[in-house]
Amino acid sequence: MQGSSATVEIHKRRAGGREAVTDAVALEEPLEIRLAYSTPEGRALRSLSITMRTPGHDHELAAGFLLSESIVTKPDDIVAIETCGAPAPDTGRRNAVRVELDASVAVDLNRLERHFYSTSSCGVCGKASLDALRAVGIRELTEARPVFTEEVLTRLPGALRKRQATFDTTGGLHAAGVFDSSGRILDVAEDVGRHNAVDKLLGSMLLAGRLPAAEHGMIVSGRASFELVQKALVAGMPLLAAVSAPSSLAVDLAREFGMTLIGFLRGDTFNIYSRPERVSA
Amino acid sequence: MQGSSATVEIHKRRAGGREAVTDAVALEEPLEIRLAYSTPEGRALRSLSITMRTPGHDHELAAGFLLSESIVTKPDDIVAIETCGAPAPDTGRRNAVRVELDASVAVDLNRLERHFYSTSSCGVCGKASLDALRAVGIRELTEARPVFTEEVLTRLPGALRKRQATFDTTGGLHAAGVFDSSGRILDVAEDVGRHNAVDKLLGSMLLAGRLPAAEHGMIVSGRASFELVQKALVAGMPLLAAVSAPSSLAVDLAREFGMTLIGFLRGDTFNIYSRPERVSA
Repeated sequence: MQGSSATVEIHKRRAGGREAVTDAVALEEPLEIRLAYSTPEGRALRSLSITMRTPGHDHELAAGFLLSESIVTKPDDIVAIETCGAPAPDTGRRNAVRVELDASVAVDLNRLERHFYSTSSCGVCGKASLDALRAVGIRELTEARPVFTEEVLTRLPGALRKRQATFDTTGGLHAAGVFDSSGRILDVAEDVGRHNAVDKLLGSMLLAGRLPAAEHGMIVSGRASFELVQKALVAGMPLLAAVSAPSSLAVDLAREFGMTLIGFLRGDTFNIYSRPERVSA
Repeated sequence: MQGSSATVEIHKRRAGGREAVTDAVALEEPLEIRLAYSTPEGRALRSLSITMRTPGHDHELAAGFLLSESIVTKPDDIVAIETCGAPAPDTGRRNAVRVELDASVAVDLNRLERHFYSTSSCGVCGKASLDALRAVGIRELTEARPVFTEEVLTRLPGALRKRQATFDTTGGLHAAGVFDSSGRILDVAEDVGRHNAVDKLLGSMLLAGRLPAAEHGMIVSGRASFELVQKALVAGMPLLAAVSAPSSLAVDLAREFGMTLIGFLRGDTFNIYSRPERVSA
C-alpha cells in the first residue's frame, strides 16, 4: 500500500475465468477547507467547501483552490495553513485544513457561490462566464512567447505518465504537470479529481513563490474544460495541453484571453485550438 | 453542427505537418437550477446551483440533481419544471431551470451544503460519508438478484458507445446508460460532466416513474467515484459498471450498501469489487 492508494480483495474476470486477488485502488476521502479572514466586523471563520480528494498535499490543494477562485493572488495573502479537525475514527486522518488569510485580503464569498459563471448584467451564459473572469482581474496573455516545439509537446504525455507513481498501481488518478519550453517536467500532482490535481499543482507553485508561471505550460491527463482553462489563466500560464478533448467554452475562454490550448495530445499528433504561434515545428 | 456540439477552426498536427481544419467540440455552458419550495413562513425561491453542462435535457438534469441530493424521492415531489432566465446574448439560449416542489416536500438546504460528507457525530471522513447516506434514508440492497451474465457485462461498453452520437464527433462527452439483465440498453445520457450525464439519466427515469430501478444496472464511460455510487444507490440500482477505475470510497460505499460494483470493464475482462453473486459465468 502507498500513501495514496488502498488495497482491496476483488474478483478479476479474465478470459480463463474468475480469480480472487488483492488489488490497489486510489484513495478518496473528503477534505473540508476552512477560511479565517478579516471583515469590517472583525475576524471570521467559515467552512468554505468540502471536496472529495486523494489525501496528501492537502495544504497545496487548499492554497490552489483559493487561487483558482481568485480569493488569493499572491503568497503573502496566506499567513498560515494548518491541518485541523478531529482524527477520523477509521483512519486516524484529520480531514480539515484551516487557511489563515492576511488582514489585507478582502473576501467576497458571494462571488464564490456564483462560481464566475454569471454577471449581474446578463445573467448566466457562456459569454458571462468569460466576462466574469475579466471582472476579477484575469488578464490577457498578449506575448507570443514562450514557444514550445512540436517535439517537446509530443513527449509530454509519456513524461507525465512516468511521474505518476500511483496511476500505475490503481489506474485511478488524474495528473497535472507543469513544464518548461525544453520539455522538462518541473512538478506533478495527482488526485482522483482532475480539478484537485490542478489545484494541488498550482497551490504548490503559489506557496513556493513561482507564480505567475509566464514561462511554463501545464499538461493534464484528461479533458480540458472551462474550469481547467480558468485555473491555468489564474496561474498566468500561456499554454495548456490536454490528453483528451476540450469543450466549446474551454476553446472560447482560451481564445478570449490569448492562451494556447492543445487537445488530443496523443502519440505524435495533437490539435491546436488557439494561438498556434506558440507552437513551432 | 449538432445540438450538443459546436464547430471550431483549428490546426491539426499530424505526422505530415500541420493543417487548418474545421472540427467539432462538445458544447459546455452554465446552467442555473432554481428551487421553489415551501417553508413554515411561506413559499421560497432559491438559486440552488450553477453547473457547467452540455445543453439539452436540462429538465432531466435538474430532476436528477435533486434526486441525487435526496431533496426529492418520487415524481410527485416535483409539481413543475420550466426553463427560465433571460436569453443569452450570444446563443439566445435560456440557461436556467426552475423546479417547483410540492408543498409536502421538506427541504433542508443545510444538508445540501454539507454534501453528505460529514455527520455531526464524527465530522468529515470516509466513514461519516457512508453514515450520512444512511441518515437520509438510503437503504441496503439485500437481494442477490437480478443476476447479469459475464457476457452481458462485456457487451455493454460497445453497446453504450454505439448510442453516443456526440462522442463520435467530439470525443468530449461522458455517457451513462441504464440496462436490463438481457443486456438491452434502455436509455443513455451524455454530458461534458460525468455527474451531469448520470443526473440526466436518473432524472429522466424519475420523471417517467421508472424508479427505483431494482431490476437494472448502470454503466458509466469513466471512473466510479463515491458520488457516482451514491447516485446509483439513490436510484435503487443493484449494479454499477465503470469502464475505468473505482476509488477506495466508491468500493467502501458499494460494500456498505450491498451494491455490485464493476470496474475496468474493457474487452472481455473486468474486476468485481463487491457482491459478486450478481454476476454469473
